[in-house]
Amino acid sequence: MSGEIPRVVVVGGGFGGLEAAKALRHASADVTLCDRNNYHLFQPLLYQVATGGLAPGEIAAPIRRVVRGQANTSVLLENVDDIDIERREVVHRDGRIPYDYLIVATGARHTYFGHEGWEAAAPGLKTIEDALDIRRRIYLAYEEAERCPDPDRPPGLLDFVVIGGGPTGVELAGAIAEIARRTLRRDFRRIDPTASRVILIEAGSSVLPSFPPDLSRRARATLEAMGVEVRVGTAVSDVSPEGVRLGDEWIDSRTVIWAAGVEASPPGRSLGQPADRAGRIEVLPDLSLPGHPEVFIVGDLALARGANGGVMPGLAPVAMQEGRLAARNVIRRIAGQPTQPFVYHDRGALATIGRRAAVAEIRGLRLTGVLAWLTWLFVHILYLIGFDSRIAVLWHWAYAYVTFERADRLITEPRRQGAFR
Amino acid sequence: MSGEIPRVVVVGGGFGGLEAAKALRHASADVTLCDRNNYHLFQPLLYQVATGGLAPGEIAAPIRRVVRGQANTSVLLENVDDIDIERREVVHRDGRIPYDYLIVATGARHTYFGHEGWEAAAPGLKTIEDALDIRRRIYLAYEEAERCPDPDRPPGLLDFVVIGGGPTGVELAGAIAEIARRTLRRDFRRIDPTASRVILIEAGSSVLPSFPPDLSRRARATLEAMGVEVRVGTAVSDVSPEGVRLGDEWIDSRTVIWAAGVEASPPGRSLGQPADRAGRIEVLPDLSLPGHPEVFIVGDLALARGANGGVMPGLAPVAMQEGRLAARNVIRRIAGQPTQPFVYHDRGALATIGRRAAVAEIRGLRLTGVLAWLTWLFVHILYLIGFDSRIAVLWHWAYAYVTFERADRLITEPRRQGAFR
Repeated sequence: MSGEIPRVVVVGGGFGGLEAAKALRHASADVTLCDRNNYHLFQPLLYQVATGGLAPGEIAAPIRRVVRGQANTSVLLENVDDIDIERREVVHRDGRIPYDYLIVATGARHTYFGHEGWEAAAPGLKTIEDALDIRRRIYLAYEEAERCPDPDRPPGLLDFVVIGGGPTGVELAGAIAEIARRTLRRDFRRIDPTASRVILIEAGSSVLPSFPPDLSRRARATLEAMGVEVRVGTAVSDVSPEGVRLGDEWIDSRTVIWAAGVEASPPGRSLGQPADRAGRIEVLPDLSLPGHPEVFIVGDLALARGANGGVMPGLAPVAMQEGRLAARNVIRRIAGQPTQPFVYHDRGALATIGRRAAVAEIRGLRLTGVLAWLTWLFVHILYLIGFDSRIAVLWHWAYAYVTFERADRLITEPRRQGAFR
Repeated sequence: MSGEIPRVVVVGGGFGGLEAAKALRHASADVTLCDRNNYHLFQPLLYQVATGGLAPGEIAAPIRRVVRGQANTSVLLENVDDIDIERREVVHRDGRIPYDYLIVATGARHTYFGHEGWEAAAPGLKTIEDALDIRRRIYLAYEEAERCPDPDRPPGLLDFVVIGGGPTGVELAGAIAEIARRTLRRDFRRIDPTASRVILIEAGSSVLPSFPPDLSRRARATLEAMGVEVRVGTAVSDVSPEGVRLGDEWIDSRTVIWAAGVEASPPGRSLGQPADRAGRIEVLPDLSLPGHPEVFIVGDLALARGANGGVMPGLAPVAMQEGRLAARNVIRRIAGQPTQPFVYHDRGALATIGRRAAVAEIRGLRLTGVLAWLTWLFVHILYLIGFDSRIAVLWHWAYAYVTFERADRLITEPRRQGAFR
């Protein structure tokens, strides 16, 4: 099957897959990068699209443009359904792509822990389509309230619930509170947007559970000062289009957002390998699949362990470093050299809450407030792909900082039946 | 029915309706502005969204933000289905809005001159959803060509047909040619985007028929120099997903865009008044509806006549001036003063073709090339609503000018069945 030049297929153009493809730039290999979208998505800023702060195009870079200069690399827009690991072929709707080496970086998607029926009422945030759907729901809620005379207004129309107190949930809750308190403050005549409720629910004992306890406490206090009601220690037991049940309490809400859990993406499952509860696949220290030295798994799909045996978290820096190592290990294997184990260089963790408010832990140094927020801004601009986007995002942020406006509050597609919902 | 303060309802937040609402800022009236979208769309730049040059949010301003400072003005997100002219009520899905004075500015939509079946194969460009659909079709055509091995490739996959040689058609054809020749030039491995065909079809005898003949000729020569095939003098007799029939000739094309005709929007028809072939409604010189001095019609829906009896063209400056006059006539009528007739202040016409190429006629002065193009840039930035958008658009244009990139080439929603088409 194999020609003289080894064929390397990378499945997934997220942080892990794109870094792998870029690291294969000088490899003596025929590289194919498959993704079901024509763009790489800068997921850490997706919540800003979901809340109307940035346009989709500003946090997404065309994959072709990123690898344009790599003559050994082709890009294919393909939805990979399956991997035929025995025949060494990637399977998609229209055919099969044979490989000699494979890097699987298909990432994760949100999970409802068995309650898949909740998805329609509580969409998650993983794709641009998800973000536009959430944006539409948030801004439409205010439009509907303005259209409904008060006694007829459905309960919970201006009560927003975010389920999940990790970084995405905290960022969403903070941004929605800012929309209510500042952006829309003077835009309506019959309703008072500042009276909206924003409720952040976390089943564990604190928000940002992966951060040190003092930063978690600080994040909670900042959220509460912004008007977010933080509810920890109770899991949601039901979600419907009318609201959520939290222990014995019912909370009316027409806009619920799910930021509570992720699981591995379907192509990963087709590998038929041992996986953890979240569907992540156990890999060897060099990130290869046990028994398949030609297959590497990186990013949210991989259950990789650090030097101390701890499981790597689902963070962009982890995925990027794994992608680069997997690419280097492919190159080593092509050259007949031994592979090297993954060692995570932890540069810290960051989460933003709102204007001048963030928490950061960088090499043991803990930052809060303005300093953490400036660090967050700097890091996110630095890692955003594309000079054009960096300038545009900086401009929108500067403008929003001064005016409290949000650049992209359009209520657009998808069209449902009828004009709106 | 009427309270002490007269109720003025403006239907439509396009150029005509928004200018009318703004001109009612100091009126002693209770003003309601209805639109089915929450944004005002800057339609002259919509072709740039359709070709990936700008993001939707950059050419759309939230209507609420625009009239935020007008305490007498409410905004309602409503899809107006009908106007009950006898009971003086605007009818929408959820109820009725009574008015004392009405300004109808619902504009136009594209028409297929009785061949409505062509719409699925040849979408028109009026809304943001239309623009995203066209953007998806253009960029997806290249992705599909890259995925299809050559002998199996459907004919016409990289042949783009634009039907209609007015400003929108010329702008689209020029932009698609630039995408093929410059933006995507180095992005593919199996296909040569520069070999794409772009065909502009105009049934009349020249492109830009509303411009002086020498400017039309110049526009055609510029398009041809950019690689666009210009076909004039023959009407399209059939459109299918495989291509178009032009006289005796069949042209294979998987991507056809309709820029050939507009007709008045449905709410206009419900007025039950004499209309021309395109559905535009005859108005009196003061823009009021014959027999209904409380109803004014502005913009593309109005069949208004200039001082010399000629019909006003469907241009943004006409709509804006009509909107302002209608508002002033409402104010005069409230004050018991006589209304004034519409007099169009013609500041000229502009159409862009591509980089450094445009045609302009300004008070009899005819410009082409770089000077016309700079005029076009200046005028469009000037009229774009919102300081944030102006800077962002200027930045994207400057970046695109230097790099030939297009800022927003994402293939996104709407999801069809299966992953792509």
